[in-house]
Amino acid sequence: MTKQNLFLNITQKQSFLCVGLDTDIKKIPAHLLQEDDPVFAFNQAIIDATQDYCVAYKLNLAFYESLGIKGLISLEKTANYIRRNYPDQFIIADAKRGDIGNTSEMYARAVFESADYDAVTVAPYMGEDSVKPFLVYPGKWLILLALTSNKGSQDFQFSTDSTGERLFEKVLKKSQEWATDEQMMYVVGATQAKMLEEIRKIVPNHFLLVPGVGAQGGSLEEVARYGMNSECGLLVNSSRQIIYADTSEHFAEAARLVAKQLQQEMSKYLQWIINAK
Amino acid sequence: MTKQNLFLNITQKQSFLCVGLDTDIKKIPAHLLQEDDPVFAFNQAIIDATQDYCVAYKLNLAFYESLGIKGLISLEKTANYIRRNYPDQFIIADAKRGDIGNTSEMYARAVFESADYDAVTVAPYMGEDSVKPFLVYPGKWLILLALTSNKGSQDFQFSTDSTGERLFEKVLKKSQEWATDEQMMYVVGATQAKMLEEIRKIVPNHFLLVPGVGAQGGSLEEVARYGMNSECGLLVNSSRQIIYADTSEHFAEAARLVAKQLQQEMSKYLQWIINAK
Repeated sequence: MTKQNLFLNITQKQSFLCVGLDTDIKKIPAHLLQEDDPVFAFNQAIIDATQDYCVAYKLNLAFYESLGIKGLISLEKTANYIRRNYPDQFIIADAKRGDIGNTSEMYARAVFESADYDAVTVAPYMGEDSVKPFLVYPGKWLILLALTSNKGSQDFQFSTDSTGERLFEKVLKKSQEWATDEQMMYVVGATQAKMLEEIRKIVPNHFLLVPGVGAQGGSLEEVARYGMNSECGLLVNSSRQIIYADTSEHFAEAARLVAKQLQQEMSKYLQWIINAK
Repeated sequence: MTKQNLFLNITQKQSFLCVGLDTDIKKIPAHLLQEDDPVFAFNQAIIDATQDYCVAYKLNLAFYESLGIKGLISLEKTANYIRRNYPDQFIIADAKRGDIGNTSEMYARAVFESADYDAVTVAPYMGEDSVKPFLVYPGKWLILLALTSNKGSQDFQFSTDSTGERLFEKVLKKSQEWATDEQMMYVVGATQAKMLEEIRKIVPNHFLLVPGVGAQGGSLEEVARYGMNSECGLLVNSSRQIIYADTSEHFAEAARLVAKQLQQEMSKYLQWIINAK
């Protein structure tokens, strides 16, 4: 998907919501456990219920890998289901991969050839040759970790060098030598919303994938205020708040309502772009 | 496996070799492509041929993931095959995982519950809560990336802070607050062998997993000289040099010979420990 098409979808749906499918078999409604593939049945219902209000789905690979081969089959079915039924949705493999060049090539093949995701999240620690193999697929995106939403982001991401530059800033700057804003996004946690103002000075045009709204405590309004650019430039992810909104048989309808509320709030913030023009 | 048992295996086999199963279906001998599961058939033959000369196998998950579900079945069969037939081998999931706490928990479940690896490689970028969920399994190991063998290691791992401390040193120091040398190892690339002397000052007692000998150009003698401690403290990985030693029907015998040569060289270096006592 091109950046232009992504922005078009955002404008049409009046939403920059990404629904995170962190599907935990221990948390899904009990009645689904009778299904052949409870995880897929859950995802299918959540996707059908929320797709009007979001522009992206983020599949958190860990949750599927934790169930072994069976989970990986649910994962594959879910990604295929979205691709087939809702072709305008941007599908993210949240995988945090990254290894030496010949190994990253294999991870890229996994998400862009064996599967057909639009984007994959990648960790920057191993540097350029661990990142570049994800960039050779036309229309596909790499989403590089910059500043994450968790407490542990304090441990290394804020390390300052002798010039006062922090590691996440170094990652933002250096990685721009490797890819354009038409093929790379960054992860910036919503719990760091006020940092978005500084981050926008370094990457004014890139899309940012922002997790941490909701269960992790980030504020959507702050994210929009400090992070939005003239092409929106934001995909805000919400997982638990939406998918576990209710654990009864009405879980999908409850998820739909939360997604709708988020979309309506986002719609207000998207006015700022129009007003600024 | 305890550290003591690992050292015992090293002493008995006179080897600290880890064979890297970076199995690429495009590189395995043509006659195996007729098998039902060519990747597993290849691995099985390599394992049977090399197990006398090594103490560990490292399964590079990317290579299996690149083939989709089919590859993941080959991976599972390979890990089970080693566990069942050669229970003393230390089995490493080379996965470079790491995410926020609740997601790292799922990755830990994937490698230590759904599968039964002895260890998993983890990237440090996201800090403490991304690392700790791997540490709650008795007898299991976390192998944290410190200084990697690739060119891209220069991009961020050598960033110095205002006190002159480099990022990989910070990772080595900080992570010692999270785990002991009985449950954590570090990845240090063989292409950085001379750095091992400095690294040993920070982590004198930890085991180091050292990739990069062979195809990537690292010297085994230098790794042993600068990296060995009184309990060996090294697992040296070789992948391509062993598994692709020959691409004919005699590939397994050729792999065995390379593994044997490496073991014999390692046996000389292990004498240094005895001589030092």
